[in-house]
Amino acid sequence: MEGKETSKMDFKAELKKYQNQIEQDLEKYIRKQDCPEKILNDSMEYSLMAGGKRLRPTLVLATYQLFKDNYEICMPYAVAIEMVHNFSLIHDDLPGIDNDDLRHGKLTNHKKFNEATAILAGDGLLNYAYLVISKDLLNTINPKELEKKVKVFHEFSLATDRMIAGEYVDTEYEGKEVLANYLEYVHQNKTGALLKLCVRMGAILADANAEDLNKLTNYAEKIGLAFQIKDDILSVEGNEIITGKPVGNDEAKGKCTYVSKYGMEKTKTILEEITKEAIENIESFGKKAEFLKELAKYIKDRNK
Amino acid sequence: MEGKETSKMDFKAELKKYQNQIEQDLEKYIRKQDCPEKILNDSMEYSLMAGGKRLRPTLVLATYQLFKDNYEICMPYAVAIEMVHNFSLIHDDLPGIDNDDLRHGKLTNHKKFNEATAILAGDGLLNYAYLVISKDLLNTINPKELEKKVKVFHEFSLATDRMIAGEYVDTEYEGKEVLANYLEYVHQNKTGALLKLCVRMGAILADANAEDLNKLTNYAEKIGLAFQIKDDILSVEGNEIITGKPVGNDEAKGKCTYVSKYGMEKTKTILEEITKEAIENIESFGKKAEFLKELAKYIKDRNK
Repeated sequence: MEGKETSKMDFKAELKKYQNQIEQDLEKYIRKQDCPEKILNDSMEYSLMAGGKRLRPTLVLATYQLFKDNYEICMPYAVAIEMVHNFSLIHDDLPGIDNDDLRHGKLTNHKKFNEATAILAGDGLLNYAYLVISKDLLNTINPKELEKKVKVFHEFSLATDRMIAGEYVDTEYEGKEVLANYLEYVHQNKTGALLKLCVRMGAILADANAEDLNKLTNYAEKIGLAFQIKDDILSVEGNEIITGKPVGNDEAKGKCTYVSKYGMEKTKTILEEITKEAIENIESFGKKAEFLKELAKYIKDRNK
Repeated sequence: MEGKETSKMDFKAELKKYQNQIEQDLEKYIRKQDCPEKILNDSMEYSLMAGGKRLRPTLVLATYQLFKDNYEICMPYAVAIEMVHNFSLIHDDLPGIDNDDLRHGKLTNHKKFNEATAILAGDGLLNYAYLVISKDLLNTINPKELEKKVKVFHEFSLATDRMIAGEYVDTEYEGKEVLANYLEYVHQNKTGALLKLCVRMGAILADANAEDLNKLTNYAEKIGLAFQIKDDILSVEGNEIITGKPVGNDEAKGKCTYVSKYGMEKTKTILEEITKEAIENIESFGKKAEFLKELAKYIKDRNK
């Protein structure tokens, strides 16, 4: 019991360490100089630095650290994935899509700036992610390292493609019965693809072998699903002061969710099951995987 | 006189050949399969295949052919640049930005589909461009070739970054006096950066030396400016049946243009000057550069 408590304390401290590192590295990419498009840069910064959980870059770094200590090589990809994540949030919140006013308890980008700025800030962040990757490739001299990073770049573009497709299906079929058939598809693509990418990027950059990559991919698929299921639960019974999103939002929009499809009780059972399966997939890594196991529990138990 | 006529005929035939090749290659990337996001794919196809002039990919191929015959190596980049161009058109036309109903005389993406679809189709095309590039890098075994293509990828991401910044400044300062100061900045970024990229991609992929790359960069900067100036002229005195855009559109929106800043007569003189300068920059390539010279004149003399 005491051991578990300690481990939980360590997890929070460890998570905070990752988050701080990521905040620091993101800051380096913020463009502060005076230029005609300064407000566009400000709006990109506004969303990027709005204080999300940094779950995606943390996954990259923590997976890498299963194999190697110094995660410096991962940083451009950790930063790039956070840019893509924030691009997707900005565009999802737009009046033409979800029309949301609040995100992380703050005004959404188009509410804080305006619609044109938010559209272009999203575009800018998506493209900036690739600018960061291209610069890293350009600075990579070692051919073996370059080959590895090109593989990561390709997976990055594929996962982002899937994320956009998932967002489309989620949006287009909102409030329509057909969406129930597509529920898994939406989750796998909209949320799952990017989370899976994060874990795979960390593993590939650390030269993981095929077997380990496979285990970690399975782990990532499970936590991706768990993440979405938990989101569905929070949308019904979360505390809106903590989540920063209005409770009942999904229901009001006629969104098909795990809760609307399976009911709350069964959804919670599924969440427990999936989390257990995620952890089982990385059992073989032993003590080193403690953080990733705790992360799976954190996704399940979080209140925002 | 006869020689010039023949050269003009050849130019049109040559241009048509490039355009046909590009249409064919774009077709290969269209996703036709049945899937939950089929309509999103359809909307991406709708804009991508709406029959633009294919000026950007043509520039890539024609520049490459100053040096080498078989332009196969360029095709992924020619396709990718056309995807980025079309992403920018879809987003520029959105209600939140220019709110245009027609493009190439056809309904704009959000009018044909809906706003959410158009936002995501633009996102999808921007990302697809990078997916195409990443796949090409992944399939490049030769380290020297890979190094060259990584350089192209980096310039690609930088130019697209500039395009988005230019679009932001153009949009944000529409109808405001300050835009007159930013007129060159908007043109250099919004239109110029991508056209320059096309020429540079063709030259870099063909292993052009620094001196040639420099001449071609200068040529590209001039035609980029000429392109925008001609657009400004067409917006005042074009035939809207031919241009597919309402005449007086820029003026009605209070857009600062070359014509509003310098008057029509001086604008036309500037256009002639710039075109002459563009051609002078590639004189040293002799007969091989005939097509690119004619292309500069075509940009100046086009009626759409």
